[in-house]
Amino acid sequence: MPVRYTPPRPEDLLPVPGVRLGAAAGRIKNWQRDDVLLVAFDPGTHAAGVFTQNRFCAAPVSVCRRHLAAGNEVRALVANAGNANAGTGEQGVRDAEATCAAVADLVGCSPRQVLPFSTGVIMEPLPVAKIVAALPDAKAALAPKGWFHAVSAIMTTDTVPKGASRRVVVDGVPITVTGIAKGSGMIHPDMATMLALVATDAPIGADVLTVLVREIAHLSFNCATVDGDTSTNDSFIVAATGKAPMSAIVTASDPRLVPIRAALTVVAVELAQAIVRDGEGATKFIAIEVAGGRDGEECRRIALGIAHSPLVKTAFFASDPNLGRIVCAIGNAATPDLDPSRVSFWLDDVLVVEHGGRAPTYREEDGQRVMKQEEITVRVALGRGSASATVWTCDFSHDYVSINADYRS
Amino acid sequence: MPVRYTPPRPEDLLPVPGVRLGAAAGRIKNWQRDDVLLVAFDPGTHAAGVFTQNRFCAAPVSVCRRHLAAGNEVRALVANAGNANAGTGEQGVRDAEATCAAVADLVGCSPRQVLPFSTGVIMEPLPVAKIVAALPDAKAALAPKGWFHAVSAIMTTDTVPKGASRRVVVDGVPITVTGIAKGSGMIHPDMATMLALVATDAPIGADVLTVLVREIAHLSFNCATVDGDTSTNDSFIVAATGKAPMSAIVTASDPRLVPIRAALTVVAVELAQAIVRDGEGATKFIAIEVAGGRDGEECRRIALGIAHSPLVKTAFFASDPNLGRIVCAIGNAATPDLDPSRVSFWLDDVLVVEHGGRAPTYREEDGQRVMKQEEITVRVALGRGSASATVWTCDFSHDYVSINADYRS
Repeated sequence: MPVRYTPPRPEDLLPVPGVRLGAAAGRIKNWQRDDVLLVAFDPGTHAAGVFTQNRFCAAPVSVCRRHLAAGNEVRALVANAGNANAGTGEQGVRDAEATCAAVADLVGCSPRQVLPFSTGVIMEPLPVAKIVAALPDAKAALAPKGWFHAVSAIMTTDTVPKGASRRVVVDGVPITVTGIAKGSGMIHPDMATMLALVATDAPIGADVLTVLVREIAHLSFNCATVDGDTSTNDSFIVAATGKAPMSAIVTASDPRLVPIRAALTVVAVELAQAIVRDGEGATKFIAIEVAGGRDGEECRRIALGIAHSPLVKTAFFASDPNLGRIVCAIGNAATPDLDPSRVSFWLDDVLVVEHGGRAPTYREEDGQRVMKQEEITVRVALGRGSASATVWTCDFSHDYVSINADYRS
Repeated sequence: MPVRYTPPRPEDLLPVPGVRLGAAAGRIKNWQRDDVLLVAFDPGTHAAGVFTQNRFCAAPVSVCRRHLAAGNEVRALVANAGNANAGTGEQGVRDAEATCAAVADLVGCSPRQVLPFSTGVIMEPLPVAKIVAALPDAKAALAPKGWFHAVSAIMTTDTVPKGASRRVVVDGVPITVTGIAKGSGMIHPDMATMLALVATDAPIGADVLTVLVREIAHLSFNCATVDGDTSTNDSFIVAATGKAPMSAIVTASDPRLVPIRAALTVVAVELAQAIVRDGEGATKFIAIEVAGGRDGEECRRIALGIAHSPLVKTAFFASDPNLGRIVCAIGNAATPDLDPSRVSFWLDDVLVVEHGGRAPTYREEDGQRVMKQEEITVRVALGRGSASATVWTCDFSHDYVSINADYRS
């Protein structure tokens, strides 16, 4: 079960005018559930995305990039669970394109206006025929209220569906933002999740959206890590249907963008944190804040160094304030010129390290108290600048090993 | 138990003329075993070392570096288990120096001729009084045959003592090389182990030794990784007593160095592999060879990317040929200009990936057969150059989590 995360109820995920979602059973794996998702966008919808930096990016990621580059108007998104269509070479690209073509026929648009996504096992051929066979049922199920059903269909090792909604009023017009995401393992910034879709009816222009999606990814998904493995399939898409009755937002300095950007960011942060809270085997949610660095990149590298250390993660799992492991992780991630004697760190409100050594005020029972919590903040001060960065992660438990040793069987 | 590693019997570790070892019980932790080691070197012994690159290096590492810089003649080495004297600030340095001073008094040398080492929990004050109190007993135990006893005294989560010996004949003179090492977790190149000591009676000059120790570390300990966490205390020392009856080797091009270098390297590789075979929770030993790279650094980065992926490591634990995870790890570690369509990889003799996708000849049962082995080689061909690199690692099991969640309790 996820750490301090209450999954949305179906009614919590607000419909976004211009977006309909439906799912059906493609039986891609031997399971009793829907696993093919179709999302239909009304004409005039713009979308922008950021994708995995993994060199072996999945075929659907290549195709998405190409389709978005060909024009920002999208009409549909098709996703499947059970097969990642990654490590599948040229055949994988042909399979993803074939899926898009089938969707285009069904909804009446160009294949380039369809964005494909896949999640599941890597290096198995995509069962295109099964997906295509399920599409008519998915189309029949299309509904504005389909968000909850949609996210349920693309879960893999996720234990709960993840979604969030916000409504803001801009110039008297209510704007809706709803997002869904899946992901639990193979989670590490750059992008950070298999698939997140956030949609709004705000009329955000294509160019503005392209900038916005990067800004938001930087503040949300790129701060999340479960196991440090960047997936081959990570994709984060923001779609703006433009259905809200207001003039288009075509410059990034438009003041109306301020509350909309905030709502989009809040939804994305909630989804990113939900993925970590539902991290494979997670029993704790840990925020790592590194401040006082020379630049943001330095802070982020050290925060990730702590977040990725198996020794730190197992200490969190054990609720053991074996905090020297955090010192060790900082020392590994730091550049050679970091002066350890200026470094401090806190566990929530407990000062643990000062001047590079154990703080005189530190008492093991205080560390123990914090380590037992389900949610913990590690604050590191580097003492040499004003930059900062935050990363969210989870602990490393027996269940992580079980989940990943048994996943395919 | 370690993976396909037979620990040495006491008689397997050949005495090195000029070296005596003894251990005693300092009761640094609440255990029934020796935990303080003293090694005495005869006058004329040169030593050189390489140490952790962790920015929070332990106090004894700082002191060792300073003592070796002050002159390459060493007379003693003192080591303790149960406390790493790391993350202990200035007091830690004073504690390490105090230990050296006590040893110097006992064996009759300068404190600068003593090299200190510590292993155990990070960020607890070193119990100097306990170590000093144990030193007379350790001195009384000093013996040329003390190697096995010595390495047993510095084990922490190690399940077996690790040591190796070789004898080579150079110009008719037998030369002995014996080494010991400890380490099981917090193991990652740059240096790669808590402590390894390799001694020889070959008369290797100080300058030659300084070059040699780096060369050997590069070919041995720096190729080993268990969990990707570089310890704060890693130290690898080569000591040459010069007791063998031959003239000193003072240039790196001396032909007599060839067989001696080979013997030193073989011993160091055996120790480094022994550490991985005894990696915390290890059930498999995995060699990762990356070839066809633009440069060695690229090959090494990709080999380490595979070795450090928790998803790859858990797949090895499960004997599950979920080999897309290796593809994913390669893609994460590669530079942006790597062309996936030129990449191939093999599991032992089984071709898995060709042209960036699953090889047509690949059959799951072949992958399964190799994955079930206790020892596996992953061979990756990048297809764009002639450089290569090898890394040794182990799998990631439930026992790793248990060991590291329970270590302090």
